[in-house]
Amino acid sequence: MTYCVAMCLNEGLLFASDSRTNAGIDNVSTFSKMSVFEQTGERVIVLLNAGNLATTQTVVSHLRKQAQHEGPSLHSVTSMFDAAMLVGDQVRAIIHRFNVNQHEQSSVDFSCTFLIGGQIRGEQPRLFLVYPQGNFIETTPETCYFQIGESKYGKPIIDRVVKPETSMDEAVKCALVSFDSTIKSNLSVGLPIDLAIARHDEQRIGFRYRIDIEDAYFRALRVAWGQGLRKVFNELPRPEWLSL
Amino acid sequence: MTYCVAMCLNEGLLFASDSRTNAGIDNVSTFSKMSVFEQTGERVIVLLNAGNLATTQTVVSHLRKQAQHEGPSLHSVTSMFDAAMLVGDQVRAIIHRFNVNQHEQSSVDFSCTFLIGGQIRGEQPRLFLVYPQGNFIETTPETCYFQIGESKYGKPIIDRVVKPETSMDEAVKCALVSFDSTIKSNLSVGLPIDLAIARHDEQRIGFRYRIDIEDAYFRALRVAWGQGLRKVFNELPRPEWLSL
Repeated sequence: MTYCVAMCLNEGLLFASDSRTNAGIDNVSTFSKMSVFEQTGERVIVLLNAGNLATTQTVVSHLRKQAQHEGPSLHSVTSMFDAAMLVGDQVRAIIHRFNVNQHEQSSVDFSCTFLIGGQIRGEQPRLFLVYPQGNFIETTPETCYFQIGESKYGKPIIDRVVKPETSMDEAVKCALVSFDSTIKSNLSVGLPIDLAIARHDEQRIGFRYRIDIEDAYFRALRVAWGQGLRKVFNELPRPEWLSL
Repeated sequence: MTYCVAMCLNEGLLFASDSRTNAGIDNVSTFSKMSVFEQTGERVIVLLNAGNLATTQTVVSHLRKQAQHEGPSLHSVTSMFDAAMLVGDQVRAIIHRFNVNQHEQSSVDFSCTFLIGGQIRGEQPRLFLVYPQGNFIETTPETCYFQIGESKYGKPIIDRVVKPETSMDEAVKCALVSFDSTIKSNLSVGLPIDLAIARHDEQRIGFRYRIDIEDAYFRALRVAWGQGLRKVFNELPRPEWLSL
């Protein structure tokens, strides 16, 4: 599996993805799930992917090939909506092709989901979640983040903290706490974590960082969060109705 | 869906279950998912169920009927292992019967899972998770709790807190915090929460309680937990490598 989260904040867009893939528990590898399309000052588009690795790699390869030629591509579309449409079309077409050619006896799940976010000059930053069927949804001020993959463990803390006015600092902290909970409870999500930030109206990745197991900040964060949780938990009132 | 958790602690067994069932988002009802079989001082057995309501009600009805007659039943088995076997046999048989009789075009999921825990005099308290296939696993000192249903949201806090030596007070608090996270993030899990405690060597439910929306303690706990989390989060160090 995978865990990816992206947030559309007033300060800009934040992207974070793990990099573990597994075909069975005995076949674990490291692949980045983040792809960046950038024309500095003009446009920046980031894709995060979850699901079948062959499918997602094929989708990204096609999108990169398109971008090198004339015609509609992530380098030529004039809105993030059109960019999401382009990704959705590729996703649907490639899953369909793999499904049609599948051996009769096999039942491989070729599906995948993408987060696509970015800013094209003249537009606001926008963030979409693209389904395997090729359709997609966009964030709103009420729901300004999306997750794909193993999303449940890390959802409660994001629900508590993240709003459009959340600062980028806070958002990065929150994303990392969310990854901590997910990594603790699910073996299929693992380090390193890729982080990317595209600030409002910069149309570029202003910050990119990879967090591996040695990262002192992430280690300190995990310890502080674990100890803090434990302390809050210990200070909770005891159940008054519980007779001993 | 459903959320149930049970823990096998040195002090005894703790059971907690929500009571929301839904057949589609527009068909929501309240059903307790906890069934108790008790012969005070002799044996206490508690079942928690998740999955298809028709299946789980049929399983419990059959087990109750068995217990009123001669022959193997939850009132006559001499070990919790045999009790789990009995439940597993019923689960498998009833799912099989429903599947065989299913209309060709329909694809209803008749499956379910059970937690079964308790103590029969002469044995230690024991706790099992019974799968739809009728097989089952038992807790160990390393993994002394099981969850069924919507388990992911509420798993991280239990993983951090619960060990066999955890006190019953702490365990109840932890279970309720776990329910809080789950209820916050998932509409299909809802109040009231049923709690039951069978202390070591008492062979009876010494404490039973239903937490509804009015419960002052649970409300206070939710507020304290939310504020505490927020405080710990705010005090976490900021990402030192994040240049502004």
